[in-house]
Amino acid sequence: MFVIGERINGMFTDVKKAIQAEDPAPIQELAKRQIAAGANALDINVGPATTDKVGAMKWLVEVAREAVDVPLCIDTPNAQVMRVGLEAAGGNAIINSTTGEEERMAEVLPLAAEFNCPVIGLTIDAEGVPRDANGRMEIALRLAAACMEQGIAMTDLYIDPVILPVNAMQAVPEEVLKSLGMCKALSDPPPQTILGLSNVSQGTLYRELINRTYLVMAVANSLDAAIMDPFDDDLMEAMITTEVLLNRNVYCDDFIKAYRR
Amino acid sequence: MFVIGERINGMFTDVKKAIQAEDPAPIQELAKRQIAAGANALDINVGPATTDKVGAMKWLVEVAREAVDVPLCIDTPNAQVMRVGLEAAGGNAIINSTTGEEERMAEVLPLAAEFNCPVIGLTIDAEGVPRDANGRMEIALRLAAACMEQGIAMTDLYIDPVILPVNAMQAVPEEVLKSLGMCKALSDPPPQTILGLSNVSQGTLYRELINRTYLVMAVANSLDAAIMDPFDDDLMEAMITTEVLLNRNVYCDDFIKAYRR
Repeated sequence: MFVIGERINGMFTDVKKAIQAEDPAPIQELAKRQIAAGANALDINVGPATTDKVGAMKWLVEVAREAVDVPLCIDTPNAQVMRVGLEAAGGNAIINSTTGEEERMAEVLPLAAEFNCPVIGLTIDAEGVPRDANGRMEIALRLAAACMEQGIAMTDLYIDPVILPVNAMQAVPEEVLKSLGMCKALSDPPPQTILGLSNVSQGTLYRELINRTYLVMAVANSLDAAIMDPFDDDLMEAMITTEVLLNRNVYCDDFIKAYRR
Repeated sequence: MFVIGERINGMFTDVKKAIQAEDPAPIQELAKRQIAAGANALDINVGPATTDKVGAMKWLVEVAREAVDVPLCIDTPNAQVMRVGLEAAGGNAIINSTTGEEERMAEVLPLAAEFNCPVIGLTIDAEGVPRDANGRMEIALRLAAACMEQGIAMTDLYIDPVILPVNAMQAVPEEVLKSLGMCKALSDPPPQTILGLSNVSQGTLYRELINRTYLVMAVANSLDAAIMDPFDDDLMEAMITTEVLLNRNVYCDDFIKAYRR
């Protein structure tokens, strides 16, 4: 599993304050600590911290890049902010994200080709998020076709079938599980799969329990990557154990410690 | 999920001592507490407590039956002990178990027909446990055919594809997951599926973590029932959450408490 740490996001108070004060220390500490906790990449999202999205993204990416050399996942719906983030990352970035809408794909996919970096494609179109797995796959196919046209390799496309809060839409988690498996039949080689995990538990009482339970199911259903909280030890342990039980990591008696070392 | 409490088993010291002293109190307390913790049925296994398997099974079943009116899962490889247990249970029992060997099926399946109770069929034959899911399915088919011959409904056959400790056979957990799904394509209606869950973590350092992680994956792969420890709160919560995420139990903010009430 490819873990993208979710914590550098202006919706968190500590990050918001650091952006507003232009104080690099909390950001760089969050960057290093997430990697130490097992993240393979870091999501970078300005969030609601400021109206100067371009300036804030440039600053945030530069600050994170000084601290770590892992892929930075530039998280913005705005193509101009995206370009600034990709430039500041100096290569080694992931585009987060495009939807399946023609306009958005036309803006974002050329950036993936220009900067030669993977791109996350959300299964959303002008009508929003489809109700079921089949609807998600229709959009996934459009995303895959548009990437092929741009010369973007399927292994550089991360399909995100968009998990919604279980308390609002209780049929969605199973449809998303189905979608993950169906993505693997889209092409050969298939696209990768990704989820913004924490969304499944938005507004619920047992957030961590729901997150880790859903992650186990998703990993067992072909999930390749997740944007998630690497500081949640129970979540990380559930993920590691799932990979051992699926024979993707070698078992040793102390496999939890071995993974985290 | 149909939870069969695993705790009334002579391999546990408290149960062993109670059997040897013919003291009903600890057994009856274990019976009631397992039901209160969420078990739907109770496994009853004399284990290594005594050489008088027949007498001990009769006593153990009678004592448990006095305390609770749920199905008692008579757990013995010996057909004579099985008959005594089924008689003592006074109906409302589950046979645990037959293998796919002709001799064993010929002894055990007529008891299922005679006592009109479900039977657990292990995917084991004279050569032991098959290496992969296909091998398990060959034996499952033999079990299903033999049940049909005896007039046992497919919904009364619980196929157990035999999970082995992950530290010894790391490819097995995934083969068993595949088997669970394949069981559902065996017939229409299909047989039910069951696992002796704790076996997956036998001899490992993180038993509870492995048990609950595997249970989540198994439930998401068509597992209907498990022999497991209802006193393991994290395990029960993982199971309940899985069912909510699969839309099998209705979400409410306090779904954990609602389920256990």
